[in-house]
This record gives sequence, C-alpha cells and structure tokens, in this order.
Amino acid sequence: MRLIVVVDSPGMRAIGLGLLGLGNVGAGVVKLLADNAAAIEGRLGARVEVKKIAVQQAEKRRLVDVDKKLITTRAKDVIDDPTVDVVIELIGGTEPAREYVMSAIAKKKHVVTANKALLAHHGDELLAACAENGVEIYYEASVGGGIPLIRALREGLASDRIDEVIGIVNGTSNFILTQMTEQGRDFAGVLREAQEAGYAEADPTLDVGGGDAAHKLAVLATLCFGSRIEFDKIFFEGIDRLTQRDLAYADRFGYTIKLLAIGKDHGDSIELRVHPTMVPKRWLLASVGGVFNAVYVNSQALGQSMYYGRGAGMMPTAVAVVSDVIEIARTLLAGTPESRARPPARAQRRIRDIGELESRYYLRFGVEDRPGVLAQLAGILGEHEVSIAEVVQEGRRDPARAATVVIVTHRARESHVQAALRAIDQLPASVEPTHLVRIYETRT
Amino acid sequence: MRLIVVVDSPGMRAIGLGLLGLGNVGAGVVKLLADNAAAIEGRLGARVEVKKIAVQQAEKRRLVDVDKKLITTRAKDVIDDPTVDVVIELIGGTEPAREYVMSAIAKKKHVVTANKALLAHHGDELLAACAENGVEIYYEASVGGGIPLIRALREGLASDRIDEVIGIVNGTSNFILTQMTEQGRDFAGVLREAQEAGYAEADPTLDVGGGDAAHKLAVLATLCFGSRIEFDKIFFEGIDRLTQRDLAYADRFGYTIKLLAIGKDHGDSIELRVHPTMVPKRWLLASVGGVFNAVYVNSQALGQSMYYGRGAGMMPTAVAVVSDVIEIARTLLAGTPESRARPPARAQRRIRDIGELESRYYLRFGVEDRPGVLAQLAGILGEHEVSIAEVVQEGRRDPARAATVVIVTHRARESHVQAALRAIDQLPASVEPTHLVRIYETRT
Repeated sequence: MRLIVVVDSPGMRAIGLGLLGLGNVGAGVVKLLADNAAAIEGRLGARVEVKKIAVQQAEKRRLVDVDKKLITTRAKDVIDDPTVDVVIELIGGTEPAREYVMSAIAKKKHVVTANKALLAHHGDELLAACAENGVEIYYEASVGGGIPLIRALREGLASDRIDEVIGIVNGTSNFILTQMTEQGRDFAGVLREAQEAGYAEADPTLDVGGGDAAHKLAVLATLCFGSRIEFDKIFFEGIDRLTQRDLAYADRFGYTIKLLAIGKDHGDSIELRVHPTMVPKRWLLASVGGVFNAVYVNSQALGQSMYYGRGAGMMPTAVAVVSDVIEIARTLLAGTPESRARPPARAQRRIRDIGELESRYYLRFGVEDRPGVLAQLAGILGEHEVSIAEVVQEGRRDPARAATVVIVTHRARESHVQAALRAIDQLPASVEPTHLVRIYETRT
Repeated sequence: MRLIVVVDSPGMRAIGLGLLGLGNVGAGVVKLLADNAAAIEGRLGARVEVKKIAVQQAEKRRLVDVDKKLITTRAKDVIDDPTVDVVIELIGGTEPAREYVMSAIAKKKHVVTANKALLAHHGDELLAACAENGVEIYYEASVGGGIPLIRALREGLASDRIDEVIGIVNGTSNFILTQMTEQGRDFAGVLREAQEAGYAEADPTLDVGGGDAAHKLAVLATLCFGSRIEFDKIFFEGIDRLTQRDLAYADRFGYTIKLLAIGKDHGDSIELRVHPTMVPKRWLLASVGGVFNAVYVNSQALGQSMYYGRGAGMMPTAVAVVSDVIEIARTLLAGTPESRARPPARAQRRIRDIGELESRYYLRFGVEDRPGVLAQLAGILGEHEVSIAEVVQEGRRDPARAATVVIVTHRARESHVQAALRAIDQLPASVEPTHLVRIYETRT
C-alpha cells in the first residue's frame, strides 16, 4: 500500500487531518483516504490530506507506508500544526486521550474519535468544550464499528423521538455466546479460543464483564435521549457467570441469551442496563450471531428499526472514521451554522436504579434434594410479590451435586426479586448461589 | 393537528416547499414539519416552509388542517411558484408524475419523491435532467420507507464498494408470507385479510406479483452499482403461486420462504432478480416478519450490514421525505458543489439473463404414482447437468391427487434446470407443472 501523492491543483481547497495513533484503524484510515481520494475530491470539491501523524515509536513497521516527514512522536506536533483542521484520536483509553482531545478542541480543531471509554467518562466535558470553541466532535466509530448508526440516529432525531435503544454492541461477548450456544461449549474454553483468534483481548474484563457495552450505551443514550449520563449510574453485568446449563434452559423455554445494552426513556427518568438477557429465539436480535453488532431502536414516528453490521475490525472502523471526516469537511467547506454532532439538549432526567426495573426473570436454584424445598422457594418468592410463571425441577443425577430448580417469573420488580434471592440463598437447603438472567419481552 | 405559523424573523432564511399530493404521506410531512419546526430551524439556521400544495379536490377533508391559500388543484401552480425551492412529488405512478417532476427540474427546483415506479422506469431521464439543471432528486422514501437506507448506502459508497444487495422490500408480500408460514394458511385467504386490513391494495398485482419489489431493486441497483438499469431486464416473479405445501417442505429442509430482491455486481455484468426464495431459518433475513422491510448489503470494506424497519406507512414515509428535505436545505444553504444524490458513475454493464443464474433449486413434481417415474425425473435432470442433493418422495394419500416428488438440487445453471423442467413437464407421467423455488446460500 502507498499513499497517493495528490498534485496540488491551484484553487482546490484542502482539509488537513492529524492522526493520533497509527495502529490498525489508523492504517485503515490512511488506506481508505488514499484509495478513494478521487471519489472524495469529486464529492467535496476539496482534497482531504493527512498532514501529521503522532505515534509512540517512530521506527516501527506499519501496515501502510507513510511519508516519514508526516510522523512525529509528540501528540503536540499534531495538535499544534496550523495545517491540521481535524484531529483524529485513535489511541484509546481515557488518558492521555482526554488531555489531547481537550487541547485539540481548545485549538479550535474538530475531533473524530472511536473512543467510547473517553466519551462515556468525559463526554460532557468534551461537548461543553466543543460548544465553547465552536467545533464538533464526531464519533461514528465508537459504537457499532462501521454501521452508520450514530449518523442515522442523529439524522432521525431531527423529526422523530427515540423511546428505546437496545444494542448487541460487544462483538467479543456475542462471539463467545454464539459459540457457547451453537457448540454447547463452556465460557472458559471459548474465551481462550477467542483470545487465540484475536477476537478477545489478553485482559478480556472490559468486554466480557459488560463495561465496554456500558460505555457504548452511555454514548447511545446521551445521543438518543438528549440527557447527560453519569457513567457510574449505568448498571452492568457481563457474560462471565453464564453456564452451559443456563443456555440449555434458555433454549428449552424458547429463548437465546444475548448480552444486551438497554436504554429506555421513561419521560421522567431513564433506564440504562447491560446484562445477559433471554430474548425470544424468533426475534431479530436473537439471529445476530458471531462478532456482529446490532442496534434496535423504538421511536415514535418510525416505529421499530434495526442496524446491523461488523462492530469492529480495521476496515469497518476506518470506514466510520472516514465518513466522519467527510461530514466535517462538508461542514467546514460550507460554513453552515448548525452543530449536527451535538445531541439535541433536553431536560436532565435521573437514571433509574436497577432495583426499579420491572422484568420477567429466569432463576436457577441449586438446592438440597429433599421434600418441601420447592415449597420454601415458592413461599419466599410469594412473600416478596414475585409470582411464578413456570417451574422445572430436576432431581440430582449426580449425588455429589445439588438438585436444580428453575423458575421463570411473571413480571416482577427487581428489588423484590433480589430481596427474595437474599433470603433464599441463606436457607439451609440452599447449596449454591442462585443464578439470575433477566428476560426481555418484545413487543412484536 | 395544526400548522404552526412561524413569525417572520428578519434575516432568517427560508426554504420553500411545494407539495404535489396531500394524501397520507403528504399529511405526515406537513405534520412533521410543523411539530419539529423549532428543531429543524435550530439545526439549519433557516426555516422550512410549505408554500403551495396541489391536490385533486380542493374541498376534500384532510388528515391535517392547512391554510386554504396554500391549496391549488393545478400542479403548475406549485412548480411555477418562485418561492418554491423544493418540489415534493407524492402522487405516485409514472404519469403525470414524470411530466411534473421534469418540469420542476427544468425550473431548477430540487425534487423529493417516494415514487419507485417513476425512478425505476424514468430514473435515467430524471438524473440526466438534474445534471443539466444543477439540481438534485432525493428519494429516501422510495425504498424501505423510513429506514435511512438510501442515505447510508450513498454515504458508505464514498469509501466503500457494494458487491451485493438483498432486500425484503415489499411489505405486503412479506406480511402474507409471514401469515402463511406462521398460521399454515393459504395465499388467497391471507391476501383477502390483508386487503381488509389495508395492508394490500384492491388490485394487489404490483405487490404480490413482484413488480413493486423489482422497482425498488432498480432504485437500489442504480445507486449501489453505479450502472444504468433497464427495468425490463429485471427478472421478477411474485408469491402468488406459492402453496402451503411448498412452505411446509421449506420448513422441513430448514428454510423459510421470503420474497427477495437480489442484486449482485459481477464486475463485468450485473445480476438482478426478484422471486420467492428459500433462506436458511437461522439467517437474519428469515426473522424479518410481517410488514417489515430489510436490506442486507455485502460490501468490500464494511463486510455485511443490514438495515431494518417499517417499509411503509404514513409517518415512516413522511420521516424519510422530511430527512431528504433537510438534506436539500443544507445543500441549498451551504452552496456546496457536490451532487450527493447522484450515484457515482461507473462503467455501464449488461444485466444478466436469469438463464445465467447459478443456484440451488427446490423442485416439486406432481407425477403419477407408478414405478420408474423417479428414475425418469432423475435421468432427465442428470442429462441437463442438474445434480440432486436431496429427494423426498411421498405416495398419494388421496387417490385423486398426484404423487409428490420433491428434489433439492446442488448448484446448477438456471437454463439447464428450465430445460429439464420443460422435458419433465411433457412426460406422460407428469400430472401438474413443476413448482420451482430458488434457494439462497448465505455466506455466514
């Protein structure tokens, strides 16, 4: 791969880009800009040129050849370069990314980022700085990789109102769950394989623990609901406690388990949660397999819609970054007054506690196999206003193991369910802590 | 519903709209513009105002109240109005819609249309006229209703190349197929119900015959592949010949039947076809039920992606029209040189004949129940290089009816299959014409 050197045509305007980071995504961006230079120029009536790239090691081998004069090891060289109009932040993590992006904004540069952790933790600060400096931050690549999702939601909001957004937004978790479901394998084995295949990080906590999905939910909710989101109020749970037995029971009840990020606007308050969820097998989101991502939206004018595609990977993410660059270039060239990237500001609303959730629940109890235990469980649930829809009781095949009781509840309040489980887990007959999986009820 | 009267603020620019037609979609557009006037003004820094509306009967009761001064019964009044910058064509059909749109373009007005028949039959002429007059035609609402699909494809094409597009784009057909599949009912009964519920037209030919889906495929293919599409070269077949037995066999082989519009760029030629298709039950498109639409895309940088939502209806279609209006307003206000709505021009390529298709086939034969018949069928298929993957033979339960032989083939050439079927249907043992359903093989 080589950068095409565009011969300066007099009178042709140019938009200067500065990159922070030149890993996979950075290399993809450089390649896409080079491969599509003519098409982009034709559309914009202007050139888009990479002016400076900050890297950690200047001499490292790269996925693309770039002119050595463009390379620096100091982020400041990129941010301060007067020919750089747009800073593309691709280093990830919250620091020093936050510091660099804030400096770029202070220098009145537009910013493109794929960094959901940065947006989730410091989105407010960044948006406020943008407003103050009259620049924009674009983040299409931060959720759903190359799916043109952020743009679709943003555009749609001009004449619609989103009530609910439900995403499968962590490809690693979805890959692991798909393998566990289709091949009957356990979490640890599939995770190891995913790590070897490069689908999971050496430290998988952020992915399989639900944190990454929660970051993305913060980004989506801020955009869709126009309310400030304090990240630490988002409830999240990962897939790391799921067992093959829970998947088998899910199947038996007609469900597939997916790690969902759910955001719901209740008008006076906002519900935000990430956790493994049983979804009906015939529902569209149940068919989103492997490393794919999907975001399902309920809105007032459009009704239900869904966006599906690759949530990660060098080229999909690079496509998203380049689409943001083109968008910014258009705004720069046009000089339109609008701030398209900023969500419409609406009233601040409180984030609901997970205890307020009303849901159906799958509960798997490990108990001693003796008379009266089921009655005890049912009694405690009843005392806490948790009503039972289905029960499966299975005797222990292996005398060393506990008997299993599985209960699917009617709609109940999470705080009541949790109180009941605390009481049940303290029973002398209780052998292992209860497994809980929330069930999502679809409207269609 | 009432139109909000915006008090003229000096210095605030205005974009004037003219509507041709004030049915459901037109009323939706008027309502959305009124309800979201402040948001739109905030985004654009300009007002968007309806200046003139042409209707057939001036005195008819409408779904929205509009100022009587805006109403005219002559399309010319809208097109010629100097305050109208954008003409929104919502009358449907090819004539007089073509004539009106051509006049509007000649008057250098931008056009927004939801009219897929017009685009499929006269797209070339309209695009050429636009290029000549320096205006644009936008058509987000023509395919997939409110799904922001055309925009996503268009934007994506700036840095990606689409190889294949597969759509469930006719809501009526999909509703009927879903009911037939889920409730085991026959075509005629479900169609009647759909007509009563308003999901199907009194004359359903365009929908259930595949013509409407073919119109939409023409629109998608022109955009995605950048090649001129002659509509009459698109192969299309509807769902009207499907029986409950074919659906039951599909289920037995692990498939669901969907009416797919398939476009594939082979580089030197383009494949375009609309027909009932067996798709694997676990594939995403198999879960697109009821009146919903979805378009699945394979592209070089992004890989697979899919867009799903309501393909019709007053508000979804109106959302799409308004999003086009906002897009045009931005261009008008910015004065950018680009022509975003026009597909990137690429080399003209020929449209393949359906005979060139390579596919797997489901074939259901109605034959006399006597020895040697299966051997005859297999022999003729073999002579035509059609190789058999699976066979199900069932004796006639009802002596008055033919025996059924169902054959699923390996990948074969359509012209060979058709030649074999012509030979088979002339056999003395053949009691009824063979039913054929093409099978779509998914990559993932």
